[in-house]
Amino acid sequence: MKKRNCFIGQSGGPTAAINASLAGIIYECIDTKQFEHVYGMINGVKGLLENKYFDLLENFDTDEKLLHLKHSPAMYLGSCRYKLPTYQEDPQTYELLFHTFEKLEITDFYYIGGNDSMDTVAKLSQYAHFIHSPIHFIGIPKTIDNDLMGTDHTPGFGSAAKYVATSMLEIAYDSSIYKLNAVTIVEIMGRNAGWLTAASALARTESNDAPDLIYLPEVPFDKESFLNDIRNVFKRKRSVIIAVSEGIKYANGEFLDSDSQYAKRDAFGHILHSGTGKVLETMVYKEFKCKVRSIELNVLQRCAMHIASQVDLDESFQIGRHAVKTSMTDQTGVMMVFQRIQNSPYTIECHHKDVSSIANLEQRIPIEWINEEHNDITKELYDYLFPLIQGEVALQYQNGIPLYANIDHLKKD
Amino acid sequence: MKKRNCFIGQSGGPTAAINASLAGIIYECIDTKQFEHVYGMINGVKGLLENKYFDLLENFDTDEKLLHLKHSPAMYLGSCRYKLPTYQEDPQTYELLFHTFEKLEITDFYYIGGNDSMDTVAKLSQYAHFIHSPIHFIGIPKTIDNDLMGTDHTPGFGSAAKYVATSMLEIAYDSSIYKLNAVTIVEIMGRNAGWLTAASALARTESNDAPDLIYLPEVPFDKESFLNDIRNVFKRKRSVIIAVSEGIKYANGEFLDSDSQYAKRDAFGHILHSGTGKVLETMVYKEFKCKVRSIELNVLQRCAMHIASQVDLDESFQIGRHAVKTSMTDQTGVMMVFQRIQNSPYTIECHHKDVSSIANLEQRIPIEWINEEHNDITKELYDYLFPLIQGEVALQYQNGIPLYANIDHLKKD
Repeated sequence: MKKRNCFIGQSGGPTAAINASLAGIIYECIDTKQFEHVYGMINGVKGLLENKYFDLLENFDTDEKLLHLKHSPAMYLGSCRYKLPTYQEDPQTYELLFHTFEKLEITDFYYIGGNDSMDTVAKLSQYAHFIHSPIHFIGIPKTIDNDLMGTDHTPGFGSAAKYVATSMLEIAYDSSIYKLNAVTIVEIMGRNAGWLTAASALARTESNDAPDLIYLPEVPFDKESFLNDIRNVFKRKRSVIIAVSEGIKYANGEFLDSDSQYAKRDAFGHILHSGTGKVLETMVYKEFKCKVRSIELNVLQRCAMHIASQVDLDESFQIGRHAVKTSMTDQTGVMMVFQRIQNSPYTIECHHKDVSSIANLEQRIPIEWINEEHNDITKELYDYLFPLIQGEVALQYQNGIPLYANIDHLKKD
Repeated sequence: MKKRNCFIGQSGGPTAAINASLAGIIYECIDTKQFEHVYGMINGVKGLLENKYFDLLENFDTDEKLLHLKHSPAMYLGSCRYKLPTYQEDPQTYELLFHTFEKLEITDFYYIGGNDSMDTVAKLSQYAHFIHSPIHFIGIPKTIDNDLMGTDHTPGFGSAAKYVATSMLEIAYDSSIYKLNAVTIVEIMGRNAGWLTAASALARTESNDAPDLIYLPEVPFDKESFLNDIRNVFKRKRSVIIAVSEGIKYANGEFLDSDSQYAKRDAFGHILHSGTGKVLETMVYKEFKCKVRSIELNVLQRCAMHIASQVDLDESFQIGRHAVKTSMTDQTGVMMVFQRIQNSPYTIECHHKDVSSIANLEQRIPIEWINEEHNDITKELYDYLFPLIQGEVALQYQNGIPLYANIDHLKKD
């Protein structure tokens, strides 16, 4: 049988679970005994265009090393923010990539990422079809935002959700100690989709009902209702804890922080929408003149491997393995997806879908999963989220901190 | 033998380890078999003045329940921010408190807290001496800031330090994935003492040298040196990661954020000094026009039990036990302290010191433990910090989040 060779890349923002999918792909490539080379491209397709890649089989020749990779956050292969031009716009880029594929006798191409990465998979597979190339292009989803279409949920989301729920619980304990009226606002990532903010509800226990209020970008934000909601919570308790998505908007579509002094901008001047908590903090203080604190969970929610979800890491590993199995049954131009069979006992299956029907679409929380008052989630959404944060990961520690995979190869020029 | 009865209180800000000291005191009271009642005051001395207390022996009658308490963050007994007036200012308050002590036949009084709490212990023991009361007043230190005098370090600091080091490591991984120049500024708690910011250096491993720069409140901040430091790091790497204390000041003594639009104020209008990261973010962006992000670790650094230090929890438990032993050898007006015998193998002993010689003083980082360039720590400081974050805590989890002690009693009016 002819030996296979593949490329694996990672792209988009980091998650705690994206290396678990990488480990799953490598594991399955080894397990099938059909792969001679398993190349990792450094910094995604952009790095590949500069011939930056190396054979992963040299670094990951034991199950122990693969487990270590599975337990390392961020991206072992590095990332790029790169929108592949269309073939019509830039045929040279395609020719360059496929020249490399041909030179290395590539049979399979695995790309782990979010929406932009799935767009890349769609374009490359269409081009391959066009030139009658037999290479298989498979997309493996990941994003903490859980906003990809076609899959029950995305790898990486469960770990971020577990970090959010645990942090929310600890913030609630922290806020419980004084006998004074106080409002704590926790700002959570998610520009257009509120999944991660909704996951803060998983912090609720028999003795903790925080977050008391949850505001999501799927429904318009109304200042008067918001202040009234707080007033109502104050009737029954002193410490009000609020979970809010960075991307909540007024009914007219404006972000809360679009004209704020706290609005952060990236290097290109794009507003980063992380001043929402500060805007609400001022709003609350003006109305209630009580202690108010806003907390931005920031990048820790996407990279906190030390409180990752075991379910998420296991599923992310499995979807990587399934990507290889799928490619070997001659599929191409597909994204791997999870299909939920049932909540209890929680059961999912791995399938695949046409990537071009999924890429560039956005999965948001269905309105019927948000309560009528637009300040909390329904039981259906809670039940959907619950299985995804289960299980704790037994990380290896060294010198008091987690021992993560060496990423010196990302620091070279 | 006459039975003993004691009060235990907690005061000041929360830490991950303050309940471990509470558990240690209860454990030792039970172990000596000499205590009939072990009362917990709710919300410290302020709650005691309102007769808010209950017998802890009813809730904690097994080792398992005490372990659960040891593994719960924030403050099981609640806190107060209350400066006890002097006897001359307000004799009634003292008479009220000692009336309660007499009524309940109190023999021992344990107060776990920071500087203000030690001031309370000093004043109560002086009053007791004045009226010839035989009650023993013992202070047990705690603070994430590690700024109490007379003790090698404070309970609670090690866990906060482990959170800071782990988060710094994960932020470094998160920042490693793109091929672009970027500066990440991590703002860490500590108004006058930089211990916790210094602990970010514990994130360094063979393959991670972040934080690249560390700025502490013990030495003046200079804008030109700061920008030059970054320029120098950029010569050898793309991603610059900076740890900065919220309380850094210019040579003229002004906080960086004192006139900033980002300076936060509490309900009393006091500046909270947590805009430092934002001020530096703007400073860096103006100079380098690169991607800049500031991250405020916020209250999570003091309450993140899920990544607590086992050494810290064990020591905090032990110092609680020693407080009872000390009280039973007829000591009063003392604060329990740690004395470090050696770094390797790490060995400490519990002793006690006159609390009035310690209260209201502040322990800052010795200048000789900061490097000459004022942008990093020395090996001596690293070696001092290292043992304090060792060991991981095996928490109990339920439904995907940590299972912490029920604190419904703090929510009652």
